[in-house]
Amino acid sequence: MADLPFDVTDPRLAAAAWTRLAEPGDAAAGTLRAHLGAAGALDWLCHVDSRGWSGRALPAGSVDAGVSPPWEEAVARWLPRLENLDIRRELAVLHSLGGRLVVPGDDEWPTALDDLAERAPAALWVRGAGRLDRLGRSAAVVGMRASTGYGDHVAAQLAIDLAERGVVVVSGGAYGIDAAAHRGALSVGGPTCAVLAGGVDRLYPAGNTALLEAVMAEGVVLAEPAPGSVPGRHRFLLRNRLIAALGQVCVVVEAAWRSGALNTARHAEQLLRPVGAVPGPVTSMASVGCHRLLRDTDAVCVTGAADVLELLSPSGQDLGEEPPVERALLDGLDPLGARVLDALPLRTGATVSNLARAAGLSEQEVRSGVGRLELAGRAERSGAGWRRARDPRGGA
Amino acid sequence: MADLPFDVTDPRLAAAAWTRLAEPGDAAAGTLRAHLGAAGALDWLCHVDSRGWSGRALPAGSVDAGVSPPWEEAVARWLPRLENLDIRRELAVLHSLGGRLVVPGDDEWPTALDDLAERAPAALWVRGAGRLDRLGRSAAVVGMRASTGYGDHVAAQLAIDLAERGVVVVSGGAYGIDAAAHRGALSVGGPTCAVLAGGVDRLYPAGNTALLEAVMAEGVVLAEPAPGSVPGRHRFLLRNRLIAALGQVCVVVEAAWRSGALNTARHAEQLLRPVGAVPGPVTSMASVGCHRLLRDTDAVCVTGAADVLELLSPSGQDLGEEPPVERALLDGLDPLGARVLDALPLRTGATVSNLARAAGLSEQEVRSGVGRLELAGRAERSGAGWRRARDPRGGA
Repeated sequence: MADLPFDVTDPRLAAAAWTRLAEPGDAAAGTLRAHLGAAGALDWLCHVDSRGWSGRALPAGSVDAGVSPPWEEAVARWLPRLENLDIRRELAVLHSLGGRLVVPGDDEWPTALDDLAERAPAALWVRGAGRLDRLGRSAAVVGMRASTGYGDHVAAQLAIDLAERGVVVVSGGAYGIDAAAHRGALSVGGPTCAVLAGGVDRLYPAGNTALLEAVMAEGVVLAEPAPGSVPGRHRFLLRNRLIAALGQVCVVVEAAWRSGALNTARHAEQLLRPVGAVPGPVTSMASVGCHRLLRDTDAVCVTGAADVLELLSPSGQDLGEEPPVERALLDGLDPLGARVLDALPLRTGATVSNLARAAGLSEQEVRSGVGRLELAGRAERSGAGWRRARDPRGGA
Repeated sequence: MADLPFDVTDPRLAAAAWTRLAEPGDAAAGTLRAHLGAAGALDWLCHVDSRGWSGRALPAGSVDAGVSPPWEEAVARWLPRLENLDIRRELAVLHSLGGRLVVPGDDEWPTALDDLAERAPAALWVRGAGRLDRLGRSAAVVGMRASTGYGDHVAAQLAIDLAERGVVVVSGGAYGIDAAAHRGALSVGGPTCAVLAGGVDRLYPAGNTALLEAVMAEGVVLAEPAPGSVPGRHRFLLRNRLIAALGQVCVVVEAAWRSGALNTARHAEQLLRPVGAVPGPVTSMASVGCHRLLRDTDAVCVTGAADVLELLSPSGQDLGEEPPVERALLDGLDPLGARVLDALPLRTGATVSNLARAAGLSEQEVRSGVGRLELAGRAERSGAGWRRARDPRGGA
């Protein structure tokens, strides 16, 4: 039985402690907290004896809650970290940085994370002027670190266009696409949210320190692991589930055949968030993962912010406009009118019977067609016949 | 009642005549031919009197065959072209060019066109050393005329890779993507097939004359309209249905927002042929149509010949290989092994209990993990603890 130096019955301290005790996404820990609360779960763990049995009883049914690892294994994972645990140290670090702890039930708790169920974080370590409960419409924009100039450009422009429409860009603060997305949003004063894999006390990667500080000036930088935690590889993969959950839609800009961004997309898919993939040249290895998403999954082809807004608003109130196209010769014509216009000579007029032969239409259809084309200013009489109008109203 | 200068009871002459009388895709003409044969249908038309009634009876039921335009309208379309019709002239032009007429029922008739039902052509005007009944596996590769260097490159490489695997490339002989596709196939000696919108006597566009002659040396150039026919705009759209029907799959390489290639893709979709679209930079207007296909239709993202072969062989016997990827640190490890390896220091060994705390695992799990990593040559003992193997077998 462990005796901790802080008040384990304090729900906030207990929630914070669980981010140290269990790795991100530990479903056994989540299930235990769901049944006992963070404090009750910690108290239960503190009363586990040398045989792995807790002096505190579990509520009926919670042991059979369908958690994959048996409780004994889970307890064996958590116990080594119980020694010397004093979460007040990590909280002191956080507060010295001007940060705050956000736990489920807080006003600021982003309820989107509840979609993670028993894999939701016990608490979030948060820094920055933004508020997590004011994400509003949000989009995860992710991609590979070794991005190309094309990918950086597209990610930045996408983030600019989304931020200008009030969509909060969520990403991972990494080099490459993540950085381009954060920068794009910041460039138009839009709040943006960076989810780190390690503690928020070390702004990782170091080369993005200035960027992450700019993110904090407008938005938030947050992490699930406590301050002091190293961003290990498997933590990146588990961090991705938070990015996927915080975005209402997930857009992958550039990704190699295997890329952490594809892992984020899979998390989004599992959370029933729409996934978008930005295509690129098939000759670019940096777009291979995006094309893989387009080919093998339900990911939607995203070419700009309009496509993302459509994914955010399936009801259609934010549909992008179709791109402007040049007015073509046959525009606005019914098929018959188009065929007659096609057959009309440019200079010397053609008779109705000649037009009928040329167009493969009856003379009556030709007469009807040229009449309508004349009204539209696209055909004119010439001698005994018809030709195209020289200066047609309506262009081309 | 018309009296034609050639034998209207000759089925081949009659079939050829119908390509002059009716525009491509005239469903009324196709239905009439289906009921009476090409010769019977022509004879029926020749006996139409001034009131629009034929002295020849239609078989019971054929008038109610569900053809959209009433027979009177159809007859009014065809009659103007019956005057001065002598299809022997067009056939003489064809033969002088070394060409041949191919009609339904001929050994060389490409039965894939029968999928067009009442919109199938009455006959094909064909030039070239290839044979239409030996298309075997085939793919339509189409795209815009104002293609980019990227699109030309991708179309040519796709055609090369398809031709090398025995797939016949079908396209429209136009500038841009079509030309690149034909050229690619020819560059590796593969037969290719060009479907023209106008008569095969005028190799259109003139700038592609040499290319189309090279196509004829290995494959075929064909058209539905008779020699002398002008390639009018609506004929391009109807020509596209032949390209779609002759290809077992249809791949669009580059297309603007509105492009004839999208029309070909729609035809292919209606014929239940798989449609593929090659993505490109979202900053390129030449890829907008392809991205539109990917976003709004069932088109599959095609990045190379392997994807096309997969569409041709859904059973999987021709699946492409996954691209080679660099071996990553955590490759081939189970999740537990990966987490332990992640926690292993590079230099000074860490004890099992330290590793358990670092990895968030029980000591028993860590012992099992390092044991397996040691067997795999990826961990080694160091003092009382463990570290990463310095020269791991199996790379990186």
